[in-house]
Amino acid sequence: MKAVVFDGEALKVVDRPVPRRGADEALIRVRLAGICNTDIEITRGYFGFRGVLGHEFVGEVVEAEDPDWVGRRVVGEINLACGECEYCRRGLERHCPNRTVLGILGKDGCFAEYVTLPLRNLHTVPEGVEDEEAVLTEPLAAALEILQQVHVDPDSPVLVVGDGKLAQLVVRVLVLTGAQVHIVGRHPAKLRLAERVGATVVPSEAVGSASYDLVVEASGSPSGWQTAIQAVRPRGTLVLKSTYAEVPRINLATVVVNEVNVVGSRCGPFRPALRLLADKRVTVRELISATYPLERAAEAFEQAKAPGVLKVLLKPPESGAQPQS
Amino acid sequence: MKAVVFDGEALKVVDRPVPRRGADEALIRVRLAGICNTDIEITRGYFGFRGVLGHEFVGEVVEAEDPDWVGRRVVGEINLACGECEYCRRGLERHCPNRTVLGILGKDGCFAEYVTLPLRNLHTVPEGVEDEEAVLTEPLAAALEILQQVHVDPDSPVLVVGDGKLAQLVVRVLVLTGAQVHIVGRHPAKLRLAERVGATVVPSEAVGSASYDLVVEASGSPSGWQTAIQAVRPRGTLVLKSTYAEVPRINLATVVVNEVNVVGSRCGPFRPALRLLADKRVTVRELISATYPLERAAEAFEQAKAPGVLKVLLKPPESGAQPQS
Repeated sequence: MKAVVFDGEALKVVDRPVPRRGADEALIRVRLAGICNTDIEITRGYFGFRGVLGHEFVGEVVEAEDPDWVGRRVVGEINLACGECEYCRRGLERHCPNRTVLGILGKDGCFAEYVTLPLRNLHTVPEGVEDEEAVLTEPLAAALEILQQVHVDPDSPVLVVGDGKLAQLVVRVLVLTGAQVHIVGRHPAKLRLAERVGATVVPSEAVGSASYDLVVEASGSPSGWQTAIQAVRPRGTLVLKSTYAEVPRINLATVVVNEVNVVGSRCGPFRPALRLLADKRVTVRELISATYPLERAAEAFEQAKAPGVLKVLLKPPESGAQPQS
Repeated sequence: MKAVVFDGEALKVVDRPVPRRGADEALIRVRLAGICNTDIEITRGYFGFRGVLGHEFVGEVVEAEDPDWVGRRVVGEINLACGECEYCRRGLERHCPNRTVLGILGKDGCFAEYVTLPLRNLHTVPEGVEDEEAVLTEPLAAALEILQQVHVDPDSPVLVVGDGKLAQLVVRVLVLTGAQVHIVGRHPAKLRLAERVGATVVPSEAVGSASYDLVVEASGSPSGWQTAIQAVRPRGTLVLKSTYAEVPRINLATVVVNEVNVVGSRCGPFRPALRLLADKRVTVRELISATYPLERAAEAFEQAKAPGVLKVLLKPPESGAQPQS
């Protein structure tokens, strides 16, 4: 099968055998996959990952122990937990210290014709949700993680720093709380997209200092931290959604003096994400900038890095390799 | 009167008029004052403060509108709030954006024969509490602030990073929760002091990674952040008590990936601090390394900076200047 591999130096489309599923796993034919900033950071050295990239996908189960699964359209949680450690027992599988992570840590990803994942990681996609929506379940779940971690007061404005893919999903989730969602960013077209779902664009010079009880930093840029830490009120909460390959120089004095609560936030819950997509409470199709055949992954990555571009998708060939049975 | 002034370049003992109290203020004769790391950081440029240094003291009210206060032995909260803004209305006077801060921001401090503070900032020292204990009320309150901000599970070990003055008080407060308190530090004699009140000393190479649900960084050193962020578990809490004049280079990726909750923590509540001192549940006298006459403040500051030294006190002259009436 065709697969997009990062070998430590470059992104390559290579021929690979179709992966064999483990006993508890499904073999999934990938219908559509999405490029995330984390994939781009990996190609810059983040996490030291080598192998098949990609962790956002929608696919169809073609093999599984339980025949009930075969033929189902699925999305998959990306953390493969051990199921036995203290974190797993506490329901914190996404923090299992023994985990592998799809396309990020010790497990080949979904930028390929086929991918394997444990059945317990899979969620059936509801009928009314199209592939172009379902493929965004994983980042939408990451946006919903904010609501799992912190309380959002519907009567207090929230500031989102950044206007990229993740920031857009964060805005879509936060407006559902009833709170006024303010957004600060650098790309007028992206800001307009956020406005269309109910956010209020705030010019960066008008963000002011110590004005928000809750600020979400989702810019992916170290300068976003400066905007965010200045905007958050004393005793307020700053949710950090960005990971950076680069180590920013952070002045922690403001965190201490203003007793700010800085909350790191990563992967989130798939079930509510699929419900919001099925109920059309969150729209995501307008976030797709382009779809490329898998074979043109290098080009797709270049486009995904360009300013003004949001989600770029990869589509594996339809009549490709056959699974080994 | 004699006062210890920082003029932006050096620490000087100068002659100053006794301050006049405002209508809502008391004039207090300082009996004993303590040197805090923040005072040392100020002499390195932190906060850009100019004026009389010092914010930890015990004194005696010599003048006040309400004669009931005169003669009382008092300690004082250091944040002078406006009493009218949103923060003050919400009971967050310590975060009032219009505040001045004793010896730190816009208000002359207590390294002097006399100091003024609003009556609402004062707390009467209970009879059984000696001056050498009461003078540590302010930093003890700062340690108690941790308990105002985060929940401590008495059945889960807590790690304190650092073995200095503040770390020692943090240990003393945390052992009262019933939790096992581990401490990592660089000074054997200081670590022994923590051991004597019930902490367990952990060698830095044995702190391990992701082992603690709660970590308190109170080392005052940027390297303390590294130890702390490595020691805290995914979804755990890292309380930051240190302020640094230097800006450390912080990798926020661990905060995001492990979804750590970083809680900045500053000044705390005086009432429980005085109760714990009165009930002898917290001992602090063993933290006093030396007491200097106020006139020898420069020498006292040098000693306070020396490794192995804990709290250094300043004692103003007993028969000094007379208040202007």
